[in-house]
Amino acid sequence: MRIPLNLESPVPLYQQIQGFLRTQIESGSLPSEMRLPATRTLAASLGVSRITVTNAYADLEAEGLIYMRPGSGTFVSPTQGATYPMLKSRDRASDWPLWQQELLSRTWLPTYRELESLLTQVTHPEPISFTAGLGALEIFPVEEFRKTMNTTLRREGYRAFEYGDRAGNPTLRATIAHILTNQGIPTTHNEVLITSGSQQAMALVAGLILRPGDIVVVESPTYVGAIDLFRSLDVRLLGVPMDKHGMIIDSLDEILQTSRPRLIYTIPTFHNPTGSCMSATRRRRLVDLASRYDVPILEDDCFGDLRFEGRALPALKALDTDGNVIYTNTFSKVLMPGLRIGFLVASGPIYEGLIACKHASDLVTCNPIQRALDAYLSVGRYQAHARRTCRLYRQRRDAMVKALERHLATDVRWHTPRGGLFIWLHLPEGCSANDLFTFAGKEGVTYAPGSLFFPGEREQPFLRLNFTINQPEIIEEGIRRLGRALDRYLASDDKPPNQRPRPVAI
Amino acid sequence: MRIPLNLESPVPLYQQIQGFLRTQIESGSLPSEMRLPATRTLAASLGVSRITVTNAYADLEAEGLIYMRPGSGTFVSPTQGATYPMLKSRDRASDWPLWQQELLSRTWLPTYRELESLLTQVTHPEPISFTAGLGALEIFPVEEFRKTMNTTLRREGYRAFEYGDRAGNPTLRATIAHILTNQGIPTTHNEVLITSGSQQAMALVAGLILRPGDIVVVESPTYVGAIDLFRSLDVRLLGVPMDKHGMIIDSLDEILQTSRPRLIYTIPTFHNPTGSCMSATRRRRLVDLASRYDVPILEDDCFGDLRFEGRALPALKALDTDGNVIYTNTFSKVLMPGLRIGFLVASGPIYEGLIACKHASDLVTCNPIQRALDAYLSVGRYQAHARRTCRLYRQRRDAMVKALERHLATDVRWHTPRGGLFIWLHLPEGCSANDLFTFAGKEGVTYAPGSLFFPGEREQPFLRLNFTINQPEIIEEGIRRLGRALDRYLASDDKPPNQRPRPVAI
Repeated sequence: MRIPLNLESPVPLYQQIQGFLRTQIESGSLPSEMRLPATRTLAASLGVSRITVTNAYADLEAEGLIYMRPGSGTFVSPTQGATYPMLKSRDRASDWPLWQQELLSRTWLPTYRELESLLTQVTHPEPISFTAGLGALEIFPVEEFRKTMNTTLRREGYRAFEYGDRAGNPTLRATIAHILTNQGIPTTHNEVLITSGSQQAMALVAGLILRPGDIVVVESPTYVGAIDLFRSLDVRLLGVPMDKHGMIIDSLDEILQTSRPRLIYTIPTFHNPTGSCMSATRRRRLVDLASRYDVPILEDDCFGDLRFEGRALPALKALDTDGNVIYTNTFSKVLMPGLRIGFLVASGPIYEGLIACKHASDLVTCNPIQRALDAYLSVGRYQAHARRTCRLYRQRRDAMVKALERHLATDVRWHTPRGGLFIWLHLPEGCSANDLFTFAGKEGVTYAPGSLFFPGEREQPFLRLNFTINQPEIIEEGIRRLGRALDRYLASDDKPPNQRPRPVAI
Repeated sequence: MRIPLNLESPVPLYQQIQGFLRTQIESGSLPSEMRLPATRTLAASLGVSRITVTNAYADLEAEGLIYMRPGSGTFVSPTQGATYPMLKSRDRASDWPLWQQELLSRTWLPTYRELESLLTQVTHPEPISFTAGLGALEIFPVEEFRKTMNTTLRREGYRAFEYGDRAGNPTLRATIAHILTNQGIPTTHNEVLITSGSQQAMALVAGLILRPGDIVVVESPTYVGAIDLFRSLDVRLLGVPMDKHGMIIDSLDEILQTSRPRLIYTIPTFHNPTGSCMSATRRRRLVDLASRYDVPILEDDCFGDLRFEGRALPALKALDTDGNVIYTNTFSKVLMPGLRIGFLVASGPIYEGLIACKHASDLVTCNPIQRALDAYLSVGRYQAHARRTCRLYRQRRDAMVKALERHLATDVRWHTPRGGLFIWLHLPEGCSANDLFTFAGKEGVTYAPGSLFFPGEREQPFLRLNFTINQPEIIEEGIRRLGRALDRYLASDDKPPNQRPRPVAI
């Protein structure tokens, strides 16, 4: 126990010890029935005589704050918790230091907070949730991974707990390069950087390239984690409108002619939240525009391997002959999000810069998990698991599409996605997915309202449904509830009669 | 396999497939003996007819690039690797896009690269290394942790592989709060944020508070990871000189009167690299100055629990009544670095801001590792392991001190540290630890030269020795070699006769 003693203070040491312990006990920081250090131990650790500690303890016992149990030690008496002891108590932001108040004025409301505040409206006791951004839990290869982890740790011993290679485990990088090459993205292991999920890959690229005030082009709508990341860096977002073939490249071209963005962020395949796939022609044009306007592209391919049907389209990285595309992917969607293993692929001088940023951010990614994943992963095993996953997700997508056809009003629209996790619903004109949320919460169903994906625009007629996390019967029941909620909303006075959605601007 | 096909191209599809595969095979991206997809599978995945793929394969076989093994499939023939296939080959930085060249001009040389370039000079076949920044490997509780991990994953199943709580596993945070409270830093679990090592804790604080051009005050010398982090953010460093009682607070006061730093970064206890401990009086003055000048303090306490002897001094966080101190610590030094589990403690509005930054950086820290650590960790177990570790490290420190006394010239000086991992050697005036490195490399011993810790100043008479990673006999032999290297260096012409060290400025 480290007790702050002031040797120059006129207050005797035993009273300082006693005062410190009293505050801690009264505040609940030292919980009741917690055993205090033996007087000898505490005296040695504080560099005071034992009698000093004994005196402090005796007074605290007299006050009833602690008690001795003969033969077993000294314990904190049962007390009631209070506020934080050492800090002055503060109710208002203005009670905190000025620098903290200034931070408050600069920080943004993260999208997860927006969603949380919506979720507090849910009154139904057992709501069915379509809000999540991850896949079905029951298909995680947990038991196989546990065994591999155990064997790996037994074999590697302490080597598994060293820092490991700065760019990530070399054989894991080689396997990743192999998987990518096999999928038409020619890659060598020394272009691969292992990261803590693809979120970190994005954060490293953004942190290296962007400075406050820079302009970033994103699809509109786009992934909430990207919105939060870019906001945290004080950069300006410009949204490019989308249709069912992805980002509208003519609009991008116009933006590139008038602004000088420092980065283009895109999810070309099974886009989050819309589920759309950028057409092959647009992919080529996008890569050409990046070269022409000298702008790097950050390609987020985290859903690319969740393809249920249709032709595989080339990754932007596979079309890039100049070194403008930085590719990111993750094992969170096909394997398990809790692993926190993602990666990026970058060619050219930027690769070394990204390793330096990774090292400055958190040194390296968790070594034992990397080693276990390396032992678990082979090209064949990854692809087999991806196929199993796609089979399951495809069934669930079909279940949701059927349920939507059955239970939702005819003027609700969607494009059936050919992969990924999400269906993007377009409500009748004038509807607000945020207003509908209240009705849905009462009926017992939740979703991710479109406003989250278009920052700055609150009322949106769009909403995102995750079709992978629930079993077909639950999907059926959830969509039935959504249908009822929509009927009530449309019949209510809440529905703004003629509000036009403006899905393009951010 | 995703092959980029251009449906609008006049080149027949089978030739596009063939051309792509040829480039990949010739470049070595598709390695020899790799099995290619079956024609039917590839045809389905590309959305072309099977005959198209068969034609492409037939031509490649005719060229000798692939071969069929009846009954088992189609394989890549043995070939020789070449350069990256899709990218134009590039020898010079100026061959890359302009935006990449601009990045090059902005990026800094990370300290690990400086050290690596020194290590290439080492000619001895079996050098003894005192360079590392981590503790002894053989005391890692690897086997206990493996068992706990296995039990935890078996019990928790897929729940261990979900994302988990944004601020970190709640019971792990409670245990950490308990350990800290027990050490005189009153903490509740909702002030604790789990991070990927304390490096990430620092990166989050820096990322939230600092913007390019801001001034940060650090000890001079200081931790290389902090130097790299601050450089990556384009901030300006101001170094405060140190003596054996830590940062000289009078100098800090002067700096605060003339500059407006946005952050003070300090390692008050068992400082890296010097091993010094800030006195209690200075700790109080530092916390007072932070309040007076409205500057946050980032307190790095990663060596605080490695105390071999002497009185425990209060953490700055324990003296902070205003909410100016953000405290960071890690399980890398007392437990194992490969875990990548650290944490920060912050009070006030900044705490929510840091969670948002963590989420933008990499969502959450690896959940299975957090859960296993939570199951492994109790206050008693942590403290018992810390005691065992301190016992071992103390023996090794004593062994190194004895060896230094025996083998080094009398005008080499050091202060014997009372904890931590490092001894900071002060060579005779005019010596350069970088120049000595060449001699040491020949004799077979390496260390971390002082210049790494004073960025911008190349010649320094200081060097850092890690006394924990080697067994006493190895320490003895390593220091003997260092003594020989120093004798040779002092006798050589390399030694600059009268270069004055200037240990204060950065």
